Amino acid sequence: MTEDRVYNFSAGPSVLPEAVLQRARAEMMNARGSGMSVMEMSHRSAVFSEIFAETKEKLRCALQVPESHEILFLQGGATLQFAAIPMNLMEGGTADYAVTGNFSSKAAKEAEKYGTVHIACDTSDTGHNRIPVQSELSLTPGAKYFYYCANNTVYGTEWPYVPAAEAPLVCDMSSDILSRPVDVGRFGLLYAGAQKNMAPAGLTVVIVDRALAGHALPFTPQVMSYETLIQHDSMLNTPPCWCIYMLSLVLDWLQEQGGVEGMEQLKRERAARLYACLDESRLFHAHALPGSRSDMNVTFRTGDAELDAAFVRFAAQRGLVNLKGHKIAGGMRASLYNAMPMEGVDALIDTMKEFEKNHV
Amino acid sequence: MTEDRVYNFSAGPSVLPEAVLQRARAEMMNARGSGMSVMEMSHRSAVFSEIFAETKEKLRCALQVPESHEILFLQGGATLQFAAIPMNLMEGGTADYAVTGNFSSKAAKEAEKYGTVHIACDTSDTGHNRIPVQSELSLTPGAKYFYYCANNTVYGTEWPYVPAAEAPLVCDMSSDILSRPVDVGRFGLLYAGAQKNMAPAGLTVVIVDRALAGHALPFTPQVMSYETLIQHDSMLNTPPCWCIYMLSLVLDWLQEQGGVEGMEQLKRERAARLYACLDESRLFHAHALPGSRSDMNVTFRTGDAELDAAFVRFAAQRGLVNLKGHKIAGGMRASLYNAMPMEGVDALIDTMKEFEKNHV
Repeated sequence: MTEDRVYNFSAGPSVLPEAVLQRARAEMMNARGSGMSVMEMSHRSAVFSEIFAETKEKLRCALQVPESHEILFLQGGATLQFAAIPMNLMEGGTADYAVTGNFSSKAAKEAEKYGTVHIACDTSDTGHNRIPVQSELSLTPGAKYFYYCANNTVYGTEWPYVPAAEAPLVCDMSSDILSRPVDVGRFGLLYAGAQKNMAPAGLTVVIVDRALAGHALPFTPQVMSYETLIQHDSMLNTPPCWCIYMLSLVLDWLQEQGGVEGMEQLKRERAARLYACLDESRLFHAHALPGSRSDMNVTFRTGDAELDAAFVRFAAQRGLVNLKGHKIAGGMRASLYNAMPMEGVDALIDTMKEFEKNHV
Repeated sequence: MTEDRVYNFSAGPSVLPEAVLQRARAEMMNARGSGMSVMEMSHRSAVFSEIFAETKEKLRCALQVPESHEILFLQGGATLQFAAIPMNLMEGGTADYAVTGNFSSKAAKEAEKYGTVHIACDTSDTGHNRIPVQSELSLTPGAKYFYYCANNTVYGTEWPYVPAAEAPLVCDMSSDILSRPVDVGRFGLLYAGAQKNMAPAGLTVVIVDRALAGHALPFTPQVMSYETLIQHDSMLNTPPCWCIYMLSLVLDWLQEQGGVEGMEQLKRERAARLYACLDESRLFHAHALPGSRSDMNVTFRTGDAELDAAFVRFAAQRGLVNLKGHKIAGGMRASLYNAMPMEGVDALIDTMKEFEKNHV
């Protein structure tokens, strides 16, 4: 790291590639010869229209999004999608929700306002430390969709497979999008808040099968109707232009690193190193069970809350920050998103070993 | 202007103070000694919590927001508020809407989904070139609120007075917030998309009387309920952190320029110079009637669409950009927001005079 920067293990908003920040800085006062910052551009201007179209195309290429699916650049975060999804897709019927963590639980609760929610599985009995196998999923015949969250940021678990369901798959990929190839055509809708693997907070990417649009409940706000948003190419109103521009820079960087295939190799390597350290440790242990472990958010603990806090402080003094776990899970969490350099993981492992030497 | 920048007359997103962009650039890689960009900070981190609280406090001071009113930093733009307002305040009853332009018309249409909309006035018969006087407003006894848009960006009119109504006043101040003092206590709710006078696109500021919260319709998304948002201090989910930070820098700059009183003097002066030029011109004429004219968006035309287009090109060649009027209004529009330097207005006037010399 240069410029007195730290290793930032925040779960989101989170680390961005240093090269991306440097490019944004260089273009801050005058982007693409426009004489203005991207932050000052009309969203209808020629230069921003170019940025918008390019970003969409880069994302389509990076994830190989089929033409059947539209890419939307929205606001409001995953939390607004918790409502938008049932408002658009539920039609007052039943939807199946797999509850494997904090955000899928919230999504299921919100959906109850708009139709019947059937809980397809619930792993809260074991502290959400695992992902159920396919045969454990209770599916409703004729369900409007099957909803799950691919990676559970809070508990550190990640679905190792794409579930099979007759209903369209709806997936929250907020914390692992762009970290691996995805067969987008298998999904009715996938979406992600940008602030983990894509861009600064304030952008939500929704990728939706156009065939599913057009069934919004009558009280759906216009700016939450997928049909309307598709018709207006995400520009019913002013989009979060700066975040879209930042995503564009991140996608350029991602391409230079080998695309999502390159990201997958890196994430496997980062996580393998850290889990190996945890499995060998006499002080720290991983929260998630093998087979369900997340490559993106590694949750671990000592079993002693005071010792956990001491470790978080110890690491922060060494420039490794935001390792405190989510308040509802406790312990530690190291988020290893695309932009986390391997050196950051190695520095964390060294720090854990040093701390362990003093505390076992 | 330095750094090869232009004069940007865009109606929004729009010009930001050059000093603000320079400060954001300087802090891009490492803000406040955190070792990271504001774009990378957890919204729950100590540093960002400080930025968030400071921004709120600076805005409270700048607009003298009374303690009865909460300041919310949201996403989704004015368009999401077109739905959120009736969802929270209408209770299925009647609300009065003053339709004096494009955005108030859209707001009224959206509200029809949630209750009965009574049109208190409609100036479309004269191309929205004026603001009605108080006695023209048709008010419903027992209305849940009276809605209006303080400044009509598209048509270039601005309410010269705060209307009187028994019902709580709800006001869209997207294009003139922070351009003058406002007696916030007179309003039940006022709101503004940030991308004109406050910050980059992606932030919506809502200032709401806490006494009005708690009446949301049952299907209101959780993240659109004012009551819930107040309880969570705008942090039910991740807020648009970068835009909030940029607002903080803009508010520092605004304070240095004499606050909203200073802004009001400047805006009166900018607009006075340009309207004087228009009223003297034999080629250009202002669209809005005297007494209803906006200081923020000056709409004008030659009466000949081809000549209008030629002027827009002529000005752009001289570094005065985004002067084309909104497509539904035609002609030209010069947006003179807080960050527009007086030199930009003078340069526009010189350019108009030069063009006129060649075309009259």
